[in-house]
Amino acid sequence: MESKEVPDIVVARLPLYLRALSALQDGGRPVTSSNEIAEWLGMTSAQVRKDLSYFGEFGKQGTGYSVAGLIERVRTILHIDHEWPVVVIGAGSIGRAIAHYSGFADRGFRVCGIFDADPLKVGMLISEHEVQPLDELTERVHRHAVRVAVLAVPGSAAQSVAELLVISGVRAILNYAPVNLHVPEDVRVENIDPVLHLQHMTYYM
Amino acid sequence: MESKEVPDIVVARLPLYLRALSALQDGGRPVTSSNEIAEWLGMTSAQVRKDLSYFGEFGKQGTGYSVAGLIERVRTILHIDHEWPVVVIGAGSIGRAIAHYSGFADRGFRVCGIFDADPLKVGMLISEHEVQPLDELTERVHRHAVRVAVLAVPGSAAQSVAELLVISGVRAILNYAPVNLHVPEDVRVENIDPVLHLQHMTYYM
Repeated sequence: MESKEVPDIVVARLPLYLRALSALQDGGRPVTSSNEIAEWLGMTSAQVRKDLSYFGEFGKQGTGYSVAGLIERVRTILHIDHEWPVVVIGAGSIGRAIAHYSGFADRGFRVCGIFDADPLKVGMLISEHEVQPLDELTERVHRHAVRVAVLAVPGSAAQSVAELLVISGVRAILNYAPVNLHVPEDVRVENIDPVLHLQHMTYYM
Repeated sequence: MESKEVPDIVVARLPLYLRALSALQDGGRPVTSSNEIAEWLGMTSAQVRKDLSYFGEFGKQGTGYSVAGLIERVRTILHIDHEWPVVVIGAGSIGRAIAHYSGFADRGFRVCGIFDADPLKVGMLISEHEVQPLDELTERVHRHAVRVAVLAVPGSAAQSVAELLVISGVRAILNYAPVNLHVPEDVRVENIDPVLHLQHMTYYM
C-alpha cells in the first residue's frame, strides 16, 4: 500500500494522526474531517489531506472520514495491524519506566522480555517481567522472532549491545542511550534523548 | 547569529552534531572534519557542510574544524551557553527516570524541582529533589524564571498542567504524555512518545 516515494517526514506524522484519531474514537466520535485532525495536531487541513493522499483515497467528498476506518487504514500502513514483540535491554530507571509504560497496549507493541548485564538486576520483577541475563538475549530474540528492541543501557555499553541485537535478528532499535549507534543499513535506529529535544526548543528562545 | 530562514530540520540536527562533537572531545580529538562528523551520524559530509553553512564560517579550508571551537559555536547557537533551570511535573516512573538522568549535566539544563499532584508522592526524595505539591509550581517557576518544563503526568492531566505551566511563564514543554497539547503559538512543545518512534520504524519493516 505504501510507496517508496512517501517522504519520511510524512511517514513520521502518521503515528501522530493515529494518536489523534484514537483520542477522537475514545471520545465517541464516529466521523472526523481533515479540519478537525489538523486542529488537534496544530497543522493546516491542506497538509493533512496532502499527507493522507500519498496513501490513496480515505474519505468521501463532503462526508468526512470514518474514524474507525481511518484508524484501521493507518494501522495497516504502519504495519501495526498485528502486534510486535519487543525486548527491552537495560533494567535501570529508563528500562523500568518503559516496562511499566501503559501506552504500548493496543498500539502495536508488547514487551516480551527485559534483559540486563548486571547479575544483581537479573531475577528482579519489573511489571510482570523477570529480568533476564544478557546472554539469553540471542536465544529469546530468535525463539520469538523479535525484530524490535528498546535499548536503555549506559552509553558506554550501547554500541556492543546494539551489535548483539543486530546479530540476533533485530531490525529496529529505539535507542535511549545518548550515543550515536553504528548499525548496518537495513537496521533502523531512532533516538530518544530528552536533551536533544530541549536543545532544539531553546534554539528558538 | 541564527537566521529565521534556517529550516527546522537543520536546527533539529544541531543537537546531534553537538552530541557527536562532545563524544569526539571526550575521546581527546582536538580537530575534526565534516567527513568524520558525517560518519558518526550516518550522513553525507556535503549535508554536514551545508547545515553548518547556515550559521557562517566554522573551519578553515583544509585544516578541519576545532572540536572545542565548534562545540562552543553550536552551544551559542542553541542558546545553551548558559544553563536553563527545568521543572519536572510528575513523579511517576518517567518523572523519576528523568530526575535520575545523568545526561543533563554540561548539556545546558539542570532540574530545579519536581512536582506532583498526589499528596502521597509529595515529600518523596528523588535524586536530590524533594517532590513538591503542584500548587507551589507557579511560585517556583516565577521565582527561578523557569522557561523549560518536562511534563510526565498521565494523559488525562496533561492539558490542564500544560495550561498551568504556560500561565506560570514556561515557554518550552517536553511532553511525555501520549496526548497532543494545545498551547499558545509562542510556546513550543516537543513530544516524546516511544510508540510514535516504534510505529515510524515498523512502517519500513
